[in-house]
Amino acid sequence: MNAADLGLPVAVPSTSLFTDRYELTMLQAALRAGTAERRSVFEVFTRRLPEGRRYGVVAGTGRVLDAVENFRFDADVLAFLADRGIVDEPTLAWLADFRFRGDIWGYPEGEVYFPGSPVMRVEGSFAEAVLLETVILSILNHDSAVAAAASRMSAAAGGRPLIEMGARRTHELAAVAAARAAYVGGFASTSDLAAGFRYNIPTVGTSAHAFTLLHDSERDAFTAQVDSLGGGTTLLVDTFDVTEAVDTAVEIAGPELGAVRIDSGDLLLLAYRVRQQLDALGAFKTKIVVTSDLDEYAIASLAAAPVDAYGVGTQLVTGSGHPTCSMVYKLVARADSGEPDAELRPVAKKSMGGKTSIGGRKWAARRLDADGVAEAEVVGTGPVPAELADRQLLVELVRDGKAVAREPLDAARDRHTAARAGLPMSATQLSRGEPVLPTEYV
Amino acid sequence: MNAADLGLPVAVPSTSLFTDRYELTMLQAALRAGTAERRSVFEVFTRRLPEGRRYGVVAGTGRVLDAVENFRFDADVLAFLADRGIVDEPTLAWLADFRFRGDIWGYPEGEVYFPGSPVMRVEGSFAEAVLLETVILSILNHDSAVAAAASRMSAAAGGRPLIEMGARRTHELAAVAAARAAYVGGFASTSDLAAGFRYNIPTVGTSAHAFTLLHDSERDAFTAQVDSLGGGTTLLVDTFDVTEAVDTAVEIAGPELGAVRIDSGDLLLLAYRVRQQLDALGAFKTKIVVTSDLDEYAIASLAAAPVDAYGVGTQLVTGSGHPTCSMVYKLVARADSGEPDAELRPVAKKSMGGKTSIGGRKWAARRLDADGVAEAEVVGTGPVPAELADRQLLVELVRDGKAVAREPLDAARDRHTAARAGLPMSATQLSRGEPVLPTEYV
Repeated sequence: MNAADLGLPVAVPSTSLFTDRYELTMLQAALRAGTAERRSVFEVFTRRLPEGRRYGVVAGTGRVLDAVENFRFDADVLAFLADRGIVDEPTLAWLADFRFRGDIWGYPEGEVYFPGSPVMRVEGSFAEAVLLETVILSILNHDSAVAAAASRMSAAAGGRPLIEMGARRTHELAAVAAARAAYVGGFASTSDLAAGFRYNIPTVGTSAHAFTLLHDSERDAFTAQVDSLGGGTTLLVDTFDVTEAVDTAVEIAGPELGAVRIDSGDLLLLAYRVRQQLDALGAFKTKIVVTSDLDEYAIASLAAAPVDAYGVGTQLVTGSGHPTCSMVYKLVARADSGEPDAELRPVAKKSMGGKTSIGGRKWAARRLDADGVAEAEVVGTGPVPAELADRQLLVELVRDGKAVAREPLDAARDRHTAARAGLPMSATQLSRGEPVLPTEYV
Repeated sequence: MNAADLGLPVAVPSTSLFTDRYELTMLQAALRAGTAERRSVFEVFTRRLPEGRRYGVVAGTGRVLDAVENFRFDADVLAFLADRGIVDEPTLAWLADFRFRGDIWGYPEGEVYFPGSPVMRVEGSFAEAVLLETVILSILNHDSAVAAAASRMSAAAGGRPLIEMGARRTHELAAVAAARAAYVGGFASTSDLAAGFRYNIPTVGTSAHAFTLLHDSERDAFTAQVDSLGGGTTLLVDTFDVTEAVDTAVEIAGPELGAVRIDSGDLLLLAYRVRQQLDALGAFKTKIVVTSDLDEYAIASLAAAPVDAYGVGTQLVTGSGHPTCSMVYKLVARADSGEPDAELRPVAKKSMGGKTSIGGRKWAARRLDADGVAEAEVVGTGPVPAELADRQLLVELVRDGKAVAREPLDAARDRHTAARAGLPMSATQLSRGEPVLPTEYV
């Protein structure tokens, strides 16, 4: 068994407690009623994108695979459930043997999605599929929110590299998943060592204002940094006076200085001024890195400025205003028994007042126009039309409980770049708008 | 050594990788320059509260204590740092022996704070104190954001219990910390089993729409649930028609039915209608639980309605619009050596364009008016005025690297209730406003 991929520097033995209590009480009641083994299909989808967003980005799929494979109830967990009276003895016995043996299909990681896209589909007995609801939604809702923000930022940055540096602004383990999702969305590197350790994402970082203040002068600080890290380092130039700092930096490191970082002030103005100064000092190759509460709009506003890289923290890890997606996990079809050939019947909540959904086990395909540009997200419950057969979006992720779609993180990153490039050009407009593709139900 | 308190169902051996790379490169450069041992004081504070908020809530302190005690660089971590060339050999050797031996003071968990409040103060050598920056900020920024939202919601709910049910809307481990922070902020229980396991927070939950849809009728579903979980259970009544469902629920469970849950629709209207219906059926004690994208405003709007408990998810775990605090960790004073009696000199970033801070090692006290109501947050760097001596806010948390302020989570929860009650009444107004206390620097 693989260690649980929780974005941890270390493995944890089980993901089964990342679960809402009601999943277990539903299990208990269904076991007693004899309905727990009914074959069931759950789907993950969103009813809408965050206000004004034009597309969503699926991220976290790789983490879901490991979470599912490691979803076991070990002795400690069973003792907890027994002690607190959360479930009864027959349910505890059932859980002791549990592992997910069903199938999961879904949009591959990095793919884009739209309202109603069935981004993941879990099939198995009701009992086994219902248990996975909470942990699957936690992973997809968090990671996809960060990846969507990352994608907008990387589109705004053009080809310039983006550095993820938001660890300090979010939960210490959410930070690791956020660095991973940011990489899928197009970021180049992270400040977070745990993300480097766990996911092999390149890590970067040199110094903070504290380092300058530790020393008796900025000159002493720069000298100490260059002595230790070499002239290719990035010197932080906004602790006191930027112009003086740039002069000192080039004097100490020479014109081969790697980069200067500006972390406050009017970044647009400062970038031009510092570039001019660096060029005048002969430091033509010294890069300018800007960091300071950047979001996709600030990045776009710097597009014409002589900036070489962006560091992004808060707005990235909090999804740039949308820290979670609104993905839900809904029973869409079920049979009357657990027999493999039992007929699946569509089911859906029907009450007034919203939260309704469309029953039935769905396929999805992206229809292209004559120029090969995506023009619609087509979602259906019947047979797949022949002309869409090779444009289907769901791929097999888990078969009989075993992950069959593991891939390197770069595959998801490349897939995202390609998927975004296949959308109409207005997809990457930053202004608020409607989803760039309509969702058509057939 | 205690296991790291990461909100995990299992212990992890080290928190040292929850660190931005630049903390280690600064360490390397300072070691080489001979400045790493200079005695240093770092402080955690915010420059402002989120727009319109009237107070902040310190949460995560207990998690910081464990993160600090478990901040070690074991062989795996050192091998990673060496392989990637992140730091040089002398730094690796230094890290191999590292444990934090300094002192930490701070606002106790659950206390309220204001712009400029020194919520935590870390003292030690530069080397040891700088390393803790990222993990301390991750914990405090995340947990305090959730606690602040929880506090507003619990104030809005009056005495009615609040259930935390946001696990599916945030990272699976952030969810555990969020449940903990929500409890500090006044929530009564959580749906998250991992939070129950790790922190002994009461867990609750019964069933979802999927359980009703699994069965051949709502009647069958309710019967299955009552058979298994007893008549004291909570039946979800909005899958099809609420009025019919309430009739069926009372018919099956009897007038002793524990509660009904409404998860969609016009909650205000439905609460009145369902209460009337329950009373007409003789189910006078059956409670009404509402859940559906609630935030503090929605809770307040239901204050007059016959609602018995609120379940809150998304808006809680995302800080109700403010998913992170803007706490920073700044070097405010340092000596020229590591000698215990070396003079500490105030330091501060000074460049134009914001992000300046006030140098010097600070104390803080809350001044009361004649009626015993808080009237100012007083922050100073000199001697503490006699009249404020017993109103000081910072307490000793870690002495010589050892946590000295562990406490049960209920202590933090009670402290928050008391601290909030000591503020002017306008603190709990939900409308946007200024911080309810001014911060005075002396």
